Amino acid sequence: MTADPARPRVRLSAADRRGQLIGIGLRLLVTRPIHELSVDEVAAEAGISRGLLFHYFPTKRDYYVAVVRAAGQRLLGHARLPEEGSPKERVRAVVAGFTGFVRRRRANYVALVRAGAGGDEKVLEVFGHLRATLAERILAALGEPDPAPLVRLAVRGWLAMAEEMAIEADGGSVTTDELVDFLVDGLDRLLAPLAPADPAP
Amino acid sequence: MTADPARPRVRLSAADRRGQLIGIGLRLLVTRPIHELSVDEVAAEAGISRGLLFHYFPTKRDYYVAVVRAAGQRLLGHARLPEEGSPKERVRAVVAGFTGFVRRRRANYVALVRAGAGGDEKVLEVFGHLRATLAERILAALGEPDPAPLVRLAVRGWLAMAEEMAIEADGGSVTTDELVDFLVDGLDRLLAPLAPADPAP
Repeated sequence: MTADPARPRVRLSAADRRGQLIGIGLRLLVTRPIHELSVDEVAAEAGISRGLLFHYFPTKRDYYVAVVRAAGQRLLGHARLPEEGSPKERVRAVVAGFTGFVRRRRANYVALVRAGAGGDEKVLEVFGHLRATLAERILAALGEPDPAPLVRLAVRGWLAMAEEMAIEADGGSVTTDELVDFLVDGLDRLLAPLAPADPAP
Repeated sequence: MTADPARPRVRLSAADRRGQLIGIGLRLLVTRPIHELSVDEVAAEAGISRGLLFHYFPTKRDYYVAVVRAAGQRLLGHARLPEEGSPKERVRAVVAGFTGFVRRRRANYVALVRAGAGGDEKVLEVFGHLRATLAERILAALGEPDPAPLVRLAVRGWLAMAEEMAIEADGGSVTTDELVDFLVDGLDRLLAPLAPADPAP
């Protein structure tokens, strides 16, 4: 397939062109799962040939991994740790960003988890980085830079709970606000018995 | 590959032969991930030819799905809901069975989750059934046959937390007993704010 002749081909730097192609992939991902992403469609949208796309991304998989990596960055951008606020407020900001993103992009998120779980090492890496980063943000919000093993494990488990609940909360009988309230309060309750005792006076 | 000539071929009924072959698969699964399971090795262990194995399971995938289904049944057998006991004792029995099984068979369990997540519909079905059954057992232990949507969702989330913690609790710094204590107490704490108010007197 060649580029749309009606659309003039614009000369971009290599970095700008890569950024443009990834941006198109991210935009298309909003409305469809990644396995339905067509490289031909992406090239046509960019006004370039399929051959030129493969110049920037040697294989379809390279392009796909670049889009997945950018999607992971976007998710992390929605789940930023605020610099200020109480521990609860900072936990809420991260988990509200995470669960809101997963609910809005449910089909996509599940498709990506499956692609990673299906054994694509690069996609697994993106998810490993995503989960580790979210866990670090939560531990930072809690003021636990060097947590006990069970606290670290509990935060990982609680993030898996947040993910499962965001994915399964389909149909709208539980709102995202209710879900976030439950999760923020739930983390507090889960960790309460693990809090270190105050040092002896 | 033909059967081991030193081993006499025993005539079994079709049901017994299928059971024997699945049993060999389950036994081999204890020490290696399912993708390393060799049909030749299974046939040799059973003292039959590869061709006869394919008589009972037309494709390697049919055999594999039968073994996965049996592994799911085995897991559910380790996570039985006791008929008697307090809600906490009954929850403990189910989650101790589940997390203990996942920890003992970690590599296998992860390989199976990935196979399912990788899009094998039959394996996904086995995991869907597994998760739904465990959630029903927990809700039965809690005396919640008809839970509010958020309670049902929370139990699903808590099971995902149990799974993630059992998988990630590698290396032994958190024992299975500590993990189970944390989870049983955690479910109590998570659901406390969701308990329906007592009816007005």
